[in-house]
Amino acid sequence: MLTIDLNCDMGESFGSYKIGNDELIMDYISSVNIACGYHAGDPAIMRETVQLAKAKAVAIGAHPGFPDLQGFGRRNMNLSYQDVYDIMVYQIGALLGFVQAAGAQLNHVKPHGALYNMAAKQPLLAKAIAQAVFDVDKSLVLFGLSGSHSILEAEHLGLKTASEVFADRTYQDDGSLTPRTEPNSMIHDADQCIQHVLQMVKEGTVTTVTKKNIPIKADTICIHGDGEHGLSFAQLLCQQLKENQIQLKPITS
Amino acid sequence: MLTIDLNCDMGESFGSYKIGNDELIMDYISSVNIACGYHAGDPAIMRETVQLAKAKAVAIGAHPGFPDLQGFGRRNMNLSYQDVYDIMVYQIGALLGFVQAAGAQLNHVKPHGALYNMAAKQPLLAKAIAQAVFDVDKSLVLFGLSGSHSILEAEHLGLKTASEVFADRTYQDDGSLTPRTEPNSMIHDADQCIQHVLQMVKEGTVTTVTKKNIPIKADTICIHGDGEHGLSFAQLLCQQLKENQIQLKPITS
Amino acid sequence: MLTIDLNCDMGESFGSYKIGNDELIMDYISSVNIACGYHAGDPAIMRETVQLAKAKAVAIGAHPGFPDLQGFGRRNMNLSYQDVYDIMVYQIGALLGFVQAAGAQLNHVKPHGALYNMAAKQPLLAKAIAQAVFDVDKSLVLFGLSGSHSILEAEHLGLKTASEVFADRTYQDDGSLTPRTEPNSMIHDADQCIQHVLQMVKEGTVTTVTKKNIPIKADTICIHGDGEHGLSFAQLLCQQLKENQIQLKPITS
Amino acid sequence: MLTIDLNCDMGESFGSYKIGNDELIMDYISSVNIACGYHAGDPAIMRETVQLAKAKAVAIGAHPGFPDLQGFGRRNMNLSYQDVYDIMVYQIGALLGFVQAAGAQLNHVKPHGALYNMAAKQPLLAKAIAQAVFDVDKSLVLFGLSGSHSILEAEHLGLKTASEVFADRTYQDDGSLTPRTEPNSMIHDADQCIQHVLQMVKEGTVTTVTKKNIPIKADTICIHGDGEHGLSFAQLLCQQLKENQIQLKPITS
Repeated sequence: MLTIDLNCDMGESFGSYKIGNDELIMDYISSVNIACGYHAGDPAIMRETVQLAKAKAVAIGAHPGFPDLQGFGRRNMNLSYQDVYDIMVYQIGALLGFVQAAGAQLNHVKPHGALYNMAAKQPLLAKAIAQAVFDVDKSLVLFGLSGSHSILEAEHLGLKTASEVFADRTYQDDGSLTPRTEPNSMIHDADQCIQHVLQMVKEGTVTTVTKKNIPIKADTICIHGDGEHGLSFAQLLCQQLKENQIQLKPITS
Repeated sequence: MLTIDLNCDMGESFGSYKIGNDELIMDYISSVNIACGYHAGDPAIMRETVQLAKAKAVAIGAHPGFPDLQGFGRRNMNLSYQDVYDIMVYQIGALLGFVQAAGAQLNHVKPHGALYNMAAKQPLLAKAIAQAVFDVDKSLVLFGLSGSHSILEAEHLGLKTASEVFADRTYQDDGSLTPRTEPNSMIHDADQCIQHVLQMVKEGTVTTVTKKNIPIKADTICIHGDGEHGLSFAQLLCQQLKENQIQLKPITS
Repeated sequence: MLTIDLNCDMGESFGSYKIGNDELIMDYISSVNIACGYHAGDPAIMRETVQLAKAKAVAIGAHPGFPDLQGFGRRNMNLSYQDVYDIMVYQIGALLGFVQAAGAQLNHVKPHGALYNMAAKQPLLAKAIAQAVFDVDKSLVLFGLSGSHSILEAEHLGLKTASEVFADRTYQDDGSLTPRTEPNSMIHDADQCIQHVLQMVKEGTVTTVTKKNIPIKADTICIHGDGEHGLSFAQLLCQQLKENQIQLKPITS
Repeated sequence: MLTIDLNCDMGESFGSYKIGNDELIMDYISSVNIACGYHAGDPAIMRETVQLAKAKAVAIGAHPGFPDLQGFGRRNMNLSYQDVYDIMVYQIGALLGFVQAAGAQLNHVKPHGALYNMAAKQPLLAKAIAQAVFDVDKSLVLFGLSGSHSILEAEHLGLKTASEVFADRTYQDDGSLTPRTEPNSMIHDADQCIQHVLQMVKEGTVTTVTKKNIPIKADTICIHGDGEHGLSFAQLLCQQLKENQIQLKPITS
């Protein structure tokens, strides 16, 4: 039977500020990426999200980002190799604290936002990230953009990786994501998202913005739980995967 | 042979800001308490200090504080039980990341500044701290003010504790530290500090500000490595302990 | 004709985090207190809120708080007189930057949360706040809890003050607010709130939780714009004030 | 008589962390750039530095930077035009608070570190900076890298500018600073620095790393007060300027 991992970024609230529908979406995913306090998240929401994930048997991952709460980790920062290594270790460790306190397991790491995107293109950043994950716990799985330097560098180190694809993003002929600045970067229609996901999972291909079919490795699919339709889309996607005999299953090392 | 633990707070630099003589003092202590980024410290200095401690075979502890870099964690903050628990887990975890990455061991936890002082007097805070340490790793040793609620609550949970005394602070008849606001709170003379320490270690008593001798439990002695005479005092104290056949030895669980 | 000032705390969003219905509520108030980036708010929302207030001819005030974004400025912090003075000047100045950039006027200052509450009871903090406001611009009006040290210290310095009362809070026999920890601290019923406000404005009295009528000075009324019923309550209150021939009017120096 | 402005970055301490010799260097400069709390500085040091500058009759400027205390504002951040405008207004305003509280005058603005360097090359950032300064107070003088977009955009808006040169940096044939990554970017010898400065001030030229003489506009000279020789160099430079009949004088609008 085909299996696939569905992941979602969560734990992004901060203090009095609430974001997302974590409790509701948690029922429809197999892996959760939990913010670690730099781009979003605080100790309270980290604890709560770890406990929720454990209760729902969802695989727990750290979701470290740039130290930029105001920019939600989405603004490029020019950090050195060593800086990136250090902020990765710090944040993975911080989440590990809550995971150990909950008697749970840390399963994977997925960098956030600008850090994720920069590492996909910059081997040095990708290596800093992979090395940090490896050094903290070499049994952790690294989630990175499918076909990117993030995956290559992690594999080079001997880390287990999960090639990530996006349910609501379009792809270009070279396999890269269409930049968000382009009008056609997002897939807004739920049915279209689902066809896009099913094709990636079942056939290992994606139809690009120029209508070419190209190969793509899809180990884990990122869905977005916030927004108006986040929950209903998650429900629909789960149902469609089931109808297609594709089983939800976390990546394990 | 008598043994004693000497501990020092380190890793309190931040970015371009340097504090302390960590590298020099590390030769004269058996335990180091490393700041975790809330009241002081950043990921880079945490990594460097862990590596230094490992190289010098000094026992590594987390030194979590209030989220108040501007006040260096010395300003009282009115945090709830849950808030304190959460910031403890976060910071211990963050340091644990660097400890694991260095292939080292986390040995103990010592709260910093206002958090340390408030917990000594407030059982609820003391319990939040002890519970956080216990939940992250119940083999960790909790350092707390000798004779305080910090120790009581930790023992109540079943944590191993180290009763801490201070080389350069005077004591009152009830066993509490003379408040820093009092003129005679500090011992400035090096020889007097050393007599004070030797008495606590060898006889288990301290002579209070009113010249009474009272019992005191001294498992670990805090010295301050910064300031003009930090290094020379550390050297002198080590030499005197040696001459008195007292061996430097970390607290182990 | 009777006049009254209605004020509301706004500009409390931060980065990607949104709080409040600022744009809608702005139509129903005469004074706005804008967060200054310490307990809430960031430069972007400060600029937007100043521009919105100017466009709607609402009097602009600074709303400085403790440096505690995670606690939303609601956790007591033990700051010195000088610390409080300094964080007041900093935050008032920061908002003044946006006010000047918008070609608007800064009218008043209202401390936030724990800083507001602590100053009401602690003359030294109240003085630090008043002195900071006075030093930045002595024509600014200080908003403080009616009958509190905040008002006394400001008047002592020669600042113009506005005695603030709350539309949705109950009062005790000594004129102080019923602590939020008490079950009857809040008035949840809209009609009851409005009777409470009208009595304070028209008669200068308040009925306490023990049903006594005591005098109270009400220059400005704080309403809360967030929550489910924030907007509808603001609309209703404005309408009732109008029907009672009470005119909305900012406090001016 | 020839005049020149000597400026220095100050107020860069933070909380318990001390940097620089502000009090000593203040005697040898005509303009001071005071950090505003984002890349360095806190409300206490801002107040102290403003008061010191006023006492010594040194012209006061704001020195805003990126929101990156850990990186001391030296790491490039990819902020939008609007983000840069907003953080400029915020920080200039914050310093303005202390300037008003001290009964002093705000004279100029000089961006810091990565923000300064990026704006020199990116017209859009330069414009955001100039517009923010203009909007807060159009009589402020903008300090920018001589010959850069920072100066062009400010002049385009009608701001008065000061073209800045560096006492201890070498220049390339196109008039740009030699990047710090190059081995010959810094002038370490004090006498050489002084000849370099005198040539720029008296002849309006600079000898580049390839030994060409090219024209350069030098309205204000940046010296660095920290480091081992900061103070002695400042003293020597002042003496040499005096001997060459060049008078120290702030830029005025």
